[in-house]
Amino acid sequence: MEQICRASVLHGAKDLRLEERTLGFPGPTELQIAVRTTGLCGSDLHYYHHYRNGDIQVREPLSLGHESAGIVVVVGSQIESFKKGDRVALEVGLPCGQCERCKEGRYNVCPELSFRGSAKSCPHFQGTLQASINHPASWCHKLPDHVSFDVGAILEPLGVAIHASRRAQIVQESSTLVLGAGPVGLLCAAMAKVAGSSNVVIADIQQERVNFATQHGFAQVGFTVPAKRGRKIDEKLQIAKETAALATEKIPNGTGSTGGFDVVIECTGVEACTQAAIYATRPGGKVMIVGMGNPVQTLPISAAALREVDILGTFRYASTYPEAVELVSGNNPLLPDLGKLVTHRFSGLDNVERAFEMAAKTKDEDGNLVLKVIVQSCGT
Amino acid sequence: MEQICRASVLHGAKDLRLEERTLGFPGPTELQIAVRTTGLCGSDLHYYHHYRNGDIQVREPLSLGHESAGIVVVVGSQIESFKKGDRVALEVGLPCGQCERCKEGRYNVCPELSFRGSAKSCPHFQGTLQASINHPASWCHKLPDHVSFDVGAILEPLGVAIHASRRAQIVQESSTLVLGAGPVGLLCAAMAKVAGSSNVVIADIQQERVNFATQHGFAQVGFTVPAKRGRKIDEKLQIAKETAALATEKIPNGTGSTGGFDVVIECTGVEACTQAAIYATRPGGKVMIVGMGNPVQTLPISAAALREVDILGTFRYASTYPEAVELVSGNNPLLPDLGKLVTHRFSGLDNVERAFEMAAKTKDEDGNLVLKVIVQSCGT
Amino acid sequence: MEQICRASVLHGAKDLRLEERTLGFPGPTELQIAVRTTGLCGSDLHYYHHYRNGDIQVREPLSLGHESAGIVVVVGSQIESFKKGDRVALEVGLPCGQCERCKEGRYNVCPELSFRGSAKSCPHFQGTLQASINHPASWCHKLPDHVSFDVGAILEPLGVAIHASRRAQIVQESSTLVLGAGPVGLLCAAMAKVAGSSNVVIADIQQERVNFATQHGFAQVGFTVPAKRGRKIDEKLQIAKETAALATEKIPNGTGSTGGFDVVIECTGVEACTQAAIYATRPGGKVMIVGMGNPVQTLPISAAALREVDILGTFRYASTYPEAVELVSGNNPLLPDLGKLVTHRFSGLDNVERAFEMAAKTKDEDGNLVLKVIVQSCGT
Amino acid sequence: MEQICRASVLHGAKDLRLEERTLGFPGPTELQIAVRTTGLCGSDLHYYHHYRNGDIQVREPLSLGHESAGIVVVVGSQIESFKKGDRVALEVGLPCGQCERCKEGRYNVCPELSFRGSAKSCPHFQGTLQASINHPASWCHKLPDHVSFDVGAILEPLGVAIHASRRAQIVQESSTLVLGAGPVGLLCAAMAKVAGSSNVVIADIQQERVNFATQHGFAQVGFTVPAKRGRKIDEKLQIAKETAALATEKIPNGTGSTGGFDVVIECTGVEACTQAAIYATRPGGKVMIVGMGNPVQTLPISAAALREVDILGTFRYASTYPEAVELVSGNNPLLPDLGKLVTHRFSGLDNVERAFEMAAKTKDEDGNLVLKVIVQSCGT
Repeated sequence: MEQICRASVLHGAKDLRLEERTLGFPGPTELQIAVRTTGLCGSDLHYYHHYRNGDIQVREPLSLGHESAGIVVVVGSQIESFKKGDRVALEVGLPCGQCERCKEGRYNVCPELSFRGSAKSCPHFQGTLQASINHPASWCHKLPDHVSFDVGAILEPLGVAIHASRRAQIVQESSTLVLGAGPVGLLCAAMAKVAGSSNVVIADIQQERVNFATQHGFAQVGFTVPAKRGRKIDEKLQIAKETAALATEKIPNGTGSTGGFDVVIECTGVEACTQAAIYATRPGGKVMIVGMGNPVQTLPISAAALREVDILGTFRYASTYPEAVELVSGNNPLLPDLGKLVTHRFSGLDNVERAFEMAAKTKDEDGNLVLKVIVQSCGT
Repeated sequence: MEQICRASVLHGAKDLRLEERTLGFPGPTELQIAVRTTGLCGSDLHYYHHYRNGDIQVREPLSLGHESAGIVVVVGSQIESFKKGDRVALEVGLPCGQCERCKEGRYNVCPELSFRGSAKSCPHFQGTLQASINHPASWCHKLPDHVSFDVGAILEPLGVAIHASRRAQIVQESSTLVLGAGPVGLLCAAMAKVAGSSNVVIADIQQERVNFATQHGFAQVGFTVPAKRGRKIDEKLQIAKETAALATEKIPNGTGSTGGFDVVIECTGVEACTQAAIYATRPGGKVMIVGMGNPVQTLPISAAALREVDILGTFRYASTYPEAVELVSGNNPLLPDLGKLVTHRFSGLDNVERAFEMAAKTKDEDGNLVLKVIVQSCGT
Repeated sequence: MEQICRASVLHGAKDLRLEERTLGFPGPTELQIAVRTTGLCGSDLHYYHHYRNGDIQVREPLSLGHESAGIVVVVGSQIESFKKGDRVALEVGLPCGQCERCKEGRYNVCPELSFRGSAKSCPHFQGTLQASINHPASWCHKLPDHVSFDVGAILEPLGVAIHASRRAQIVQESSTLVLGAGPVGLLCAAMAKVAGSSNVVIADIQQERVNFATQHGFAQVGFTVPAKRGRKIDEKLQIAKETAALATEKIPNGTGSTGGFDVVIECTGVEACTQAAIYATRPGGKVMIVGMGNPVQTLPISAAALREVDILGTFRYASTYPEAVELVSGNNPLLPDLGKLVTHRFSGLDNVERAFEMAAKTKDEDGNLVLKVIVQSCGT
Repeated sequence: MEQICRASVLHGAKDLRLEERTLGFPGPTELQIAVRTTGLCGSDLHYYHHYRNGDIQVREPLSLGHESAGIVVVVGSQIESFKKGDRVALEVGLPCGQCERCKEGRYNVCPELSFRGSAKSCPHFQGTLQASINHPASWCHKLPDHVSFDVGAILEPLGVAIHASRRAQIVQESSTLVLGAGPVGLLCAAMAKVAGSSNVVIADIQQERVNFATQHGFAQVGFTVPAKRGRKIDEKLQIAKETAALATEKIPNGTGSTGGFDVVIECTGVEACTQAAIYATRPGGKVMIVGMGNPVQTLPISAAALREVDILGTFRYASTYPEAVELVSGNNPLLPDLGKLVTHRFSGLDNVERAFEMAAKTKDEDGNLVLKVIVQSCGT
């Protein structure tokens, strides 16, 4: 029952090839899914450009892609809860299920986790830029008919935002600052709103992104961070302090007494932003590290510690899909239209390369903002 | 009802003068306390040597001292729960009681908190190196007869350790690494044990301190960190990784699978130690920043964030005295003899300067370890 | 600087007298407030009808009222943050500020708490059905101009709802059942929505209340509980199970797999409802006891314990006013118009008795629903 | 590779038969274990005497037993972390691993959980009173050589106690009351001590059990509850209040100000005890429901709710084995000798019936206390 299946496969930096692979029948607890949408993310781009992602070197040909939705085409023999034709979003990180982290519900930091489109485990767990894949049914999440496949793919970065808002323990009527207005930053801002933050401020160095955020309801207030650069650490920290002060002034109903934001979500990975994040947080508040970027940063650690500002990392997500599906299926007036994040679509595996080239830009040739780029119809 | 009262007052760097002050009758909700012991702490030493502490400049003559115990000599008119002769430990940070932080129980980060012996608020809230002070009864904590005044003074740094162990949410049978075996590090190690950590490892660059820790039951395992120095950040991080690996190997029953300590308590304030702390923590674990030192540090932030290692600051303590009093009053077999921390005692306000000189050393003239230096009998 | 001030004073069951009291100048940290609105609550009614509330017997003439807002008319000498003319909501429970409960932020269960209009502490702390009162400034909360005094009074029961939603740890996209659609039940339903519950079901035996709830956006789904009565406990529990099953079916997007609501908020105080609440909660979910009524209840305790359904009491609120003020000041689309809860207003202290008579009814003479009854303009 | 294996099988009330079953080769991720010890528990006894347990009717022949340890005799083909001869404790509840409860780490309330020796799931998951069983390796926990098989079996009820102490969030220097001094109550008392409760009081109606508790270090203070009986609920509640008051007086260092125990762990399942538990808990404290007994109880619910005394159920345990193994492997001076709980041992499957008869008694024929009864050497 094997079949031939097309796949976009990375063989080296910028060496993307369209290949045919054989795909077996799904195992008894698996589904075979025709992939309909795959969103491209920063880590895909890193692999594409460098054949590596941070410390992780690709060691064998790798299909990228991990933000995905599709249609069930074959149902494993033991599966009763899915049927052919079901529309699903894929949760592509499979934890071991047996370690302490898994048993306590933090499966995202399971040391044995395999993640599609990542070169961390070996053999690599192939990504979703393929026509069809077999995937465990328990990691597939049904989508209602009225939720688009675009949004189905976005559930993955939405999971990052849900996870961050959970770890930040965002409470009603709190204030949140988001640094970075790319797709993840925008989703983090939206989730901060949904989770009860009544004062969400977003900042970016690109004015168009800030405008997008406020015009489409991702944040109440945005501001463009002026590009200042210091050479010495003292100058840098001074600039970070000024950015933080500027942000704090924007808290809509903010009272000076609290001394900053309850939560700051750092989505850029840039050192200057983490510095500003620390200064912009109130005593007892939290800095969430979502952005991946500078792996080593010089930080005003006492400014955090002496005020009990916690610096919390977030890595992907755990148990977010059910909430994410329900959120996009409902009609929560606090939730902006997530479909608006998809600014560019490319159809078919033949166009993956063009999609990657677009995803690397901040604006397209017409001057339009590039946010999320989606590869559609891989499986048709 | 005013009286003359002697006080040790700092007028400039190393300019400590013995003065007479007038002390009024205690207010209706206050107690007048004859100070019996005051422990010297790192921040006292900073003030003594520099007439400042980090960013905080002394702006008027200041009595130092905030680790204190004494005897009630006058009872305010509205106080019923204390009587003359009661032995008490003093909690010397007075929060505003009305801000959001206070109302949620985190009064240690109240922006309006006044702390004895600190130059932060103005006029400065005078420290306990005086013969007698008036202090609100609600911030005095009764000591049973069998608890010494030495230990009464130690309840203050013990509060730091209790607070750190609470914020770290130390659980039964967990592993804890403490970096730094000075008085605060030793107390943090002891509290980690008391709080349930079955594998407590302590590290220091001074072998005598490490020996003290293990010989007197503050930690199960200790090791002396070799003095290596890197110039470039990569070298430094490599050394930090090696230190972390060395520490992880010492986990008594540790299984390699968990990938590090559940909790690392950093008590040195040194950048290299914070770096090692991050590497030595397991995925999902916590680094507690207790030590104050380098206010700006270059840290492997991705190594923390990607494994959801949280970096949590701790600033002093809140609501720790009742637990601390009960702990030292009982006979918990996990608790080492805290009195052993007091290695040197100086009697009377005339000897405060000698006490400070001793506290600045790591060993005394006889080669004995210097840990906690206590000034006794101020109020007699 | 004393003045004469009118007050409505209860001298016995249904013996409400209009009296003149002398009111001194406010203390240095107090405000004098002309009371503008006082909402009547169930406990006021109990005092009015029985001169007692549960176990608490009134022992001296008592002004009732604790849901209040007014205008600052005199400012204590040490107060800088308020000025004459400020509009404020009153938080009328004053905790001791020094016990363990207070220091950990749970001041609502402070054993020494004094609460206006309650006969628990002696002398009784007089309620707000007076022309003017002196109240500590730190327990007054400023209202923006666009928030009505009606809503200012409602912040008190809203605090109950906020506190319940916090203790219930309501999370995004969860399901909540509220039993009882009186003012507190309606507010609990609204807060469950605001706090992220996407599926809020409300139940009552009175159809008009249920209709009010769904028509005005307090809950998505409501249903009228049929009046069945069992004699024996087995019959009663069977009816409770059926009610629970009926409620569970109403979960809008509910999947049968979860086996019930994440949270059930019991706002009636009726035994049959607590029984139904337990059955209607999913494994690991929470029953919140908000309603006060039958002090002793026969409950299916194993049905709770074996599924780890927690039964959590809530008593009033702690630190809810800042959030409540900000919530009603903003424009959260999830929040229904709380002013709609005020169905009847009576003006002036002369009409307090009429107000109490109305508050005792479920419908007025015209057949209109009676929810919150407000006494206005006490202080004019 | 099938073999014949002896099993003790229940065919009806008190109808225990020794049978031969065929046992297949363990699956690739399973271990085959020769059972060495099985402790008998209250639920086993219910099945034995009534062929049912509460609502659960046995529907096919059932081997009882779920407190077990043994030796690995065959290792599944994919297992690398175990080898023949390894000594293991068995965690016998297998959750589905895929539902929301499992993914959040609360697998003990997974609706699909199968538990050995229980008739809940069908076909029944056979218990450990067999010579050998095949069990998933990921639910086997290695025992060090110096931990006896007796203690290996006790890890199961110890898990109940660990789970209760975790859910109770027992903190340092807190006070805990345990009601019931049978094996589970004794273990709960021990864990309360280990978890930091400095004042552990235990109560039972049988004086010998209380004596056992205090003599062997399971609790600091014990007292025998006098057998009083009320007929009406008011009398019953009055007796419960008196019991609570009696218990509260026993708090070793207890201050009256706190108004009761921080935590009360109810291990009897008796209504009168749950009532006393509520009264004996301080405001904001917790009642843990561990004992299973009267499924419907009449409780002073207002006495709980108005003081925010939470009533929390505990059902078995989740993720407790690693901690339990480490605890009994170490030398925590707070932990009493758990082996002392085993008062009676019966060797071989031929003696299971005698073991059950003994387990039903509170004293043996010689007047010795009966606590835990163990069936040894099933697998030899």
